[in-house]
Amino acid sequence: MSKGIEIYLDKKRTIVDKALEKFMPQPSGLASEMITSMNYSLFAGGKRLRPILCIAGAEAVGGCADNVLPVACALELIHTYSLIHDDLPAMDNDDFRRGKPTNHKVFGEAVAILAGDGLLTLAFNLMARHGTEGGSREGVLMRVIDLISHAAGYKGMVGGQTADIAYEGKEPDPAVVHYIHRHKTGALIAASVTSGAILAGCNEEQERSINRYGQQVGLAFQIADDVLNIEGDSSVMGKDIGSDKARGKMTYPSVFGITDSKRAQEELVDSAIDSLTGFDKKADPLRNIARYIIKRKA
Amino acid sequence: MSKGIEIYLDKKRTIVDKALEKFMPQPSGLASEMITSMNYSLFAGGKRLRPILCIAGAEAVGGCADNVLPVACALELIHTYSLIHDDLPAMDNDDFRRGKPTNHKVFGEAVAILAGDGLLTLAFNLMARHGTEGGSREGVLMRVIDLISHAAGYKGMVGGQTADIAYEGKEPDPAVVHYIHRHKTGALIAASVTSGAILAGCNEEQERSINRYGQQVGLAFQIADDVLNIEGDSSVMGKDIGSDKARGKMTYPSVFGITDSKRAQEELVDSAIDSLTGFDKKADPLRNIARYIIKRKA
Repeated sequence: MSKGIEIYLDKKRTIVDKALEKFMPQPSGLASEMITSMNYSLFAGGKRLRPILCIAGAEAVGGCADNVLPVACALELIHTYSLIHDDLPAMDNDDFRRGKPTNHKVFGEAVAILAGDGLLTLAFNLMARHGTEGGSREGVLMRVIDLISHAAGYKGMVGGQTADIAYEGKEPDPAVVHYIHRHKTGALIAASVTSGAILAGCNEEQERSINRYGQQVGLAFQIADDVLNIEGDSSVMGKDIGSDKARGKMTYPSVFGITDSKRAQEELVDSAIDSLTGFDKKADPLRNIARYIIKRKA
Repeated sequence: MSKGIEIYLDKKRTIVDKALEKFMPQPSGLASEMITSMNYSLFAGGKRLRPILCIAGAEAVGGCADNVLPVACALELIHTYSLIHDDLPAMDNDDFRRGKPTNHKVFGEAVAILAGDGLLTLAFNLMARHGTEGGSREGVLMRVIDLISHAAGYKGMVGGQTADIAYEGKEPDPAVVHYIHRHKTGALIAASVTSGAILAGCNEEQERSINRYGQQVGLAFQIADDVLNIEGDSSVMGKDIGSDKARGKMTYPSVFGITDSKRAQEELVDSAIDSLTGFDKKADPLRNIARYIIKRKA
């Protein structure tokens, strides 16, 4: 693994974290505990993969972070809300996330539900209020809000999470695990990189290629997550290992076995990189992120 | 109470219901139960007050329902999501809503949480995808999405709900109940009528007046709700009476007494109507809705 990509990711993570700090409110007023709760999960050490993919998508077509930061941050808010809600006792009932107690363990279920709702709503506020500040036209931003809300909603992430829970403990089924992974994780990851490219003014052909890259990387990322849940080091990951199996989650390894899962993620990364054939070296970060995604330890 | 307003409300409710049916998905795919769950609460017999206020706000400045329907429907989706989440065991733990079992009673907590998330996300998708179809410019729609997401979020509805729960069983405090009512209910109602006027092309002075109307009507509406929770007929309302008191909710009557609460709602309605002094008879529906809001039985 080249050091270059890790330096790149660190640099972009710093940019994203600074922007998130600027956009997020300080606790105040009678709802201050919920604001504290939003910030607790948002600043709990996330990888910022979705915002970084959004920036790298912009860079691949000649743009830069400044074109897309409000939308990039909104993607992280949406991702964080989904983690808070997924961890709830009624859902996955997880006690730890990124090495820290989950949101509802610290703030209680009511505040955790509201903090998730608050983050999701704030994501759209951020996009509507600040989304054109990087130079995008309003019509372009509107398309991006459409794309992201579609990917995050019942046809995307929320749909995938529903199936993830509905099919716990059921017979392994390739079609089901595909559905879950493409919707629960793939959709928002694909929307992240694609929205970056759109905001930076890509043409239709570029958009299609980048979207294909995003779909493949998103699926590879979730398979890698499944594999880490079996073979990972819980002290590095900050969460329990083996929880998918204990819970009867339908995962790639549970359906296809660990060897075929690893082969699938390699093939997906190759395909993702192939999708970028028409792009010059400005797309190298996207290529390197694809490789990184299946090599990571957490 | 004049029959005119009831005929008006019926007519607009029919228009809103038809549009909602057009916009809402049919259950299909692996997440179909969550889609069924979204539709269950959305079509459980709501008054459609927020969409109707959005339409009446447009009419007051010379517009019509066709200018605002996607946004009007989005407001109802946001309202419905908030009811589903508010009813959860971790929140208000309500078993009945509009005479029917609450969402989590039918679909379980996990699906109810996800259905709420799905409705909130779909609301923004609806606005971004269809919001300009009524003739509004993209920049105008963007301002409306900003306004609505602000009113629905941590500085508005979600903030108010947080305080509502945090202050259960606490000493009556006028400042607290004001905060709760203005945020939990007032903010989205004000945003509903204001966004209708903005989409229909109002000027700044009209926007300020209509927004003031909305703030006052929103507060009056919540006080009337509090009063109905004491004096209402549970068979007409479809939910239990006396639940606020049993739960130690901070309400207008619990802080100011029932007589002063009724006086306050009358005064707020008078002020709301005064806010419309500069408007001609096209604002009569808004005036009549203000009066209706404190006379209703459910």
